[in-house]
Amino acid sequence: MRFVAYRDAQGEGLAVQRTDGRLTGLSKSAAKFPGALDHLVPLGREALVAAHGVLANAATIDAARVTYLAPFRAAPKIICVGLNYVDHSNETGHKLPTYPTIFARWNSSLVGHDVPVVRPHVSTELDYEGEFVAVIGRGGRHISKGRALDHVAGYSVFNDVSVRDYQMRTLQWTIGKNFDATGAFGPSFVTADEVPAGAKGLRLTTRLNGQVMQSASTDDLIFDVATLVSTLSEAMTLEAGDVIVTGTPAGVGGMRKPQVFMKPGDVCEVEVEGIGLLRSPIASEPM
Amino acid sequence: MRFVAYRDAQGEGLAVQRTDGRLTGLSKSAAKFPGALDHLVPLGREALVAAHGVLANAATIDAARVTYLAPFRAAPKIICVGLNYVDHSNETGHKLPTYPTIFARWNSSLVGHDVPVVRPHVSTELDYEGEFVAVIGRGGRHISKGRALDHVAGYSVFNDVSVRDYQMRTLQWTIGKNFDATGAFGPSFVTADEVPAGAKGLRLTTRLNGQVMQSASTDDLIFDVATLVSTLSEAMTLEAGDVIVTGTPAGVGGMRKPQVFMKPGDVCEVEVEGIGLLRSPIASEPM
Repeated sequence: MRFVAYRDAQGEGLAVQRTDGRLTGLSKSAAKFPGALDHLVPLGREALVAAHGVLANAATIDAARVTYLAPFRAAPKIICVGLNYVDHSNETGHKLPTYPTIFARWNSSLVGHDVPVVRPHVSTELDYEGEFVAVIGRGGRHISKGRALDHVAGYSVFNDVSVRDYQMRTLQWTIGKNFDATGAFGPSFVTADEVPAGAKGLRLTTRLNGQVMQSASTDDLIFDVATLVSTLSEAMTLEAGDVIVTGTPAGVGGMRKPQVFMKPGDVCEVEVEGIGLLRSPIASEPM
Repeated sequence: MRFVAYRDAQGEGLAVQRTDGRLTGLSKSAAKFPGALDHLVPLGREALVAAHGVLANAATIDAARVTYLAPFRAAPKIICVGLNYVDHSNETGHKLPTYPTIFARWNSSLVGHDVPVVRPHVSTELDYEGEFVAVIGRGGRHISKGRALDHVAGYSVFNDVSVRDYQMRTLQWTIGKNFDATGAFGPSFVTADEVPAGAKGLRLTTRLNGQVMQSASTDDLIFDVATLVSTLSEAMTLEAGDVIVTGTPAGVGGMRKPQVFMKPGDVCEVEVEGIGLLRSPIASEPM
């Protein structure tokens, strides 16, 4: 099942991508609207199946006339993992980690597919980070690695766009990861059964203005999805709807020589095989 | 106005502390229940005044028979500030910061007053951090420092309990700040008019088993509340209900020689003059 959140003249809506490629969906004002994904995922797989059934028989959505929304916009936690690909860990000069590096995004930083990622006035160091995300379907604490994937509802695509000078301004990266309109997310939320277990073996590619900047297999994760779920749950209760942003491979702009930062007018795409393509035009912050 | 969230046999409730010291309140099941603070604060001061009026005339709550809840349990953002007192910045060996060090907590880590803070199985390095918090009442972006305090609805008390070995295990502190039942918060949410502007000039004291471990004036903040609101809003839209945890002064256990960590059976208290006293018994994680 492939879900897409959007907004059109009728307001917020939820669509499914049918196997024939058509998007069909309902807006929130429709009597049969099943709820947003933030609401549906905690209800379990049956609720997603029922919603899919309703949406697959709804009217076709004209993709050219909608604004895509981040598939989840009220996640209890957006848990980001840093330095989670060997090659990226190496390019940043860090030792290979033995424990995942965790930081947070807040929902206020999210934007949807084809919606501008905004370069703030205060910086020119806007950098891409192509990633895939795992969404928790069933919460828990002390989840064993063997059971961890049972807790994952599905996957999506993320561009963890970073304001590098702010990220490095203090010891903690959080501020540089939370500028408004920098967390590009979507468009598709794909249920776990649509991809290999743990989203393994998928090609992740980031392109800036058509040029490949990052290319890796999701097999190259240091801490795979099952390990992340299990390790995180050692510390904290994972909740349905939590989003785990799994980390980026080598090739970020800030580590290139010379550095490459994104500027207004650029277009960045993150594509994860079998999950989807997330496109972000880059814009200036409005005055 | 002083609000206190609780749970009793009737379920979740909200009370006010009257000037005569009595707690009077209503449970969620009551027809006149005005809503939780997460709901009320975004509605503005008028909603708080109306809720206070209803609650001040409700039945007395027997404080001995309630479980205190964190006053806010669904904050859009819990924004924590590190190294924000000169003496604490010095004791950790850092240069005096010129920009606030920001990290995140998630709501899943919160507990109320008089509810156990839990030392997890995986660590013995449980450390207190007495702090006060500012709660955003009116959101915004690019808020000037001169207007910043107009955006603050009120204040509360926080113990930013840290699992030090996990905090220091990687470059990012987040995991060590987000163990379940480590973010002690409350009991009172005090509206801004009850304390000096910006909660300036208040004595903050942390006691462990009755012994004073931290004592500072909130005047010693490097980045005061107005500066934090303004600086954070340069990067991100602040939202009503966002919680800013302002940082801890010197005296944390991990920096003492010898180190002092909290263990099951200990009692930690954080008191902020004019705001309230937050008490946390320390417990082991249940097997």
